[in-house]
Amino acid sequence: MALYVKKFGGTSVGSTERIQRIAQKLKDAHDAGEKIVVVPSAMSGETNRLVALAREMMPGVVDLRELDVLLSTGEQVTIALLTMALKALGLDARSYTGTQVKVLTDHSHSKARIQHIDTDKIFKDLDEGRIVVVAGFQGVNSDGDITTLGRGGSDTSAVALAAALKADECQIFTDVDGVYTTDPRVESRARRLERITFEEMLEMASLGSKVLQIRAVEFAGKYNVPLRVLSTFEPGEGTLITYDDGESSMEQALVSGIAFSRDEAQIKVNGVMDKPGTAYAILGPISDLNIEVDMIVQNQAEDETTDFTFTVHRDDYEKVMDFLENRKNELGAKSISGNNRVAKISIVGVGMRSHAGIASQMFKALAEANVNLGLISTSEIKVSVVVDENYLELGVRALHEAFELESTPV
Amino acid sequence: MALYVKKFGGTSVGSTERIQRIAQKLKDAHDAGEKIVVVPSAMSGETNRLVALAREMMPGVVDLRELDVLLSTGEQVTIALLTMALKALGLDARSYTGTQVKVLTDHSHSKARIQHIDTDKIFKDLDEGRIVVVAGFQGVNSDGDITTLGRGGSDTSAVALAAALKADECQIFTDVDGVYTTDPRVESRARRLERITFEEMLEMASLGSKVLQIRAVEFAGKYNVPLRVLSTFEPGEGTLITYDDGESSMEQALVSGIAFSRDEAQIKVNGVMDKPGTAYAILGPISDLNIEVDMIVQNQAEDETTDFTFTVHRDDYEKVMDFLENRKNELGAKSISGNNRVAKISIVGVGMRSHAGIASQMFKALAEANVNLGLISTSEIKVSVVVDENYLELGVRALHEAFELESTPV
Repeated sequence: MALYVKKFGGTSVGSTERIQRIAQKLKDAHDAGEKIVVVPSAMSGETNRLVALAREMMPGVVDLRELDVLLSTGEQVTIALLTMALKALGLDARSYTGTQVKVLTDHSHSKARIQHIDTDKIFKDLDEGRIVVVAGFQGVNSDGDITTLGRGGSDTSAVALAAALKADECQIFTDVDGVYTTDPRVESRARRLERITFEEMLEMASLGSKVLQIRAVEFAGKYNVPLRVLSTFEPGEGTLITYDDGESSMEQALVSGIAFSRDEAQIKVNGVMDKPGTAYAILGPISDLNIEVDMIVQNQAEDETTDFTFTVHRDDYEKVMDFLENRKNELGAKSISGNNRVAKISIVGVGMRSHAGIASQMFKALAEANVNLGLISTSEIKVSVVVDENYLELGVRALHEAFELESTPV
Repeated sequence: MALYVKKFGGTSVGSTERIQRIAQKLKDAHDAGEKIVVVPSAMSGETNRLVALAREMMPGVVDLRELDVLLSTGEQVTIALLTMALKALGLDARSYTGTQVKVLTDHSHSKARIQHIDTDKIFKDLDEGRIVVVAGFQGVNSDGDITTLGRGGSDTSAVALAAALKADECQIFTDVDGVYTTDPRVESRARRLERITFEEMLEMASLGSKVLQIRAVEFAGKYNVPLRVLSTFEPGEGTLITYDDGESSMEQALVSGIAFSRDEAQIKVNGVMDKPGTAYAILGPISDLNIEVDMIVQNQAEDETTDFTFTVHRDDYEKVMDFLENRKNELGAKSISGNNRVAKISIVGVGMRSHAGIASQMFKALAEANVNLGLISTSEIKVSVVVDENYLELGVRALHEAFELESTPV
């Protein structure tokens, strides 16, 4: 009998009625012969409510050990309610907190890493015909203190459980029915991918297709856990995320998807000395401000000076511009220029590895659509460009068509 | 340094602002040199909210293992918030769930009994200057399953902790400032008792002075834990509940307090055969209906028949009357009569043991106030009478005065 770990997010368990619907869904799967371990998140809104209570108690820095004690109650409520709903349908089921399983983690409260998962109790329950309900997001450290894995940690819990149990598949149920070639709100002909590789998924996820937690995808890739993203309440096969196993590579498209991210800002430090340490002198202090820098490009120097360009989230634009203006002399820069009305478009695909010319095919398609390119950066399976934000949708659609990603009309 | 276990009920921790006030109160005590273990309940209303969710999931019989997983989150939230509030005041503090301490119980979900409490972690924390915050109401069984002790179980948790830690005192903070000679809403001259014995407290508690859980008082008596009831937010010494140690018995009043209970009903089965098995034939089936019978009196038989009288809560009156009417012939009873407009008044005091004539002193006082007596029942330290409900307040005041319980006017 196949063993599945099924993870349900906060909106999927957002009400007692929804929990009951999930219970029915699990009953169908159980009746069909599946062995099931379920990992629910906290009911939507609950974690935010608890965080707000914590902030009232400690307006300054919240104690992370106690925050984990507090936040872990969110999932504990859901596992009890879901198990009750399963029992009400006549199924045998049992819930476990992270402490009870146990999900052993390191000591980093609020962002703990899973080190080991005991599987004895779970296998025993499965053998006795039970559905096992395990709290996501939480674990316990070697001192017996409750830990949490950070926002979205339930995905990681599910994948780690699937790895520990050697499950046939880890299924992530969410409010979308799979991973798409691009955002269907931008390109209506976007197509659900039946398969995607872990690497592609990582590139898509980091670009704003927030279907899955990056850590969970990394974890699944590391332990080779087949991961499937599918809709909680809609039928469908979803998207399977696996290694590129060669079998499917014959039909592998060159580009799997078009990812994009709005609200970017581009900042250019003009005429800094082209010498070791310049990049660090610019980016080190920005990183210290807890500002995340995304693309980084340095143009070839024409004389002894060079231009250094990078992107940040639009919200951080003013802060970074002010900061650099104030340090301009110190950095020895001629000037600072920037543009906070830009967006980023990326093509992603493992097919790029073995096929040259994908980047120029991308530039050609964008040129034909009259989309002007700013920064360009490439990696092994991705090419990203910065464009004027007004050209984002146009660019995405042009690329979607150029790489023939659209769904075949039925 | 004296060690205190301090328990705070649901209304005392009913809001974040109240939790902060308690934290300040604990800081004062800590600064004064006390070693402190705190046992908070769930925030008021939280347990009811969770029970309602459980009922939605399992409209029939709720699974008790899962209910305990669910309900235990209530106290877990409070321990985290209170510990945060203590830390925000610059104190060192640490929270523990019942599983973490650990509070080992038997396997009776929803009404578990504490078997053992590990004290190592707590003593270590206390020695290092920490305030220790332990979740009330919950424990863990030998399988690692979460258990709860039943409604009001936090009192029991606190007393059990005090016993295990050999604390100098277990302090139960509540919304009243102690145990009174009678209900001040009925007799404005009611006086707060400085001391009361465990036995007296048990008699008072079982009669509706719901200051403390009966189980907690029994537990405290068994392990000789000095128990103090006092107000959360008002100053004062409260009432100390201890053994009658002889020292204070010189000044021990004959009667310590007047307890009463409204909403009683009295039922009389007339003319049943005076033979073995009659009482069981009447009360056995009533008990099977989950109806609690309080006072039971059988009059001396005049011929071969006798009258059998007992009291139940007024809500159960109709049900019991119908039941007995239907079984009248089967029981061989002449008739069934009843009165659901009665109340019970009791005088309680360990002084009765060594002093004869207390009961007749009680009857005299009631007679002088023109209070007619129905059922009468006595125990070693208590005399109870049933009266017409209209005479309840009058009777209580007459007895309060007769036994000189009133506070001395200042």
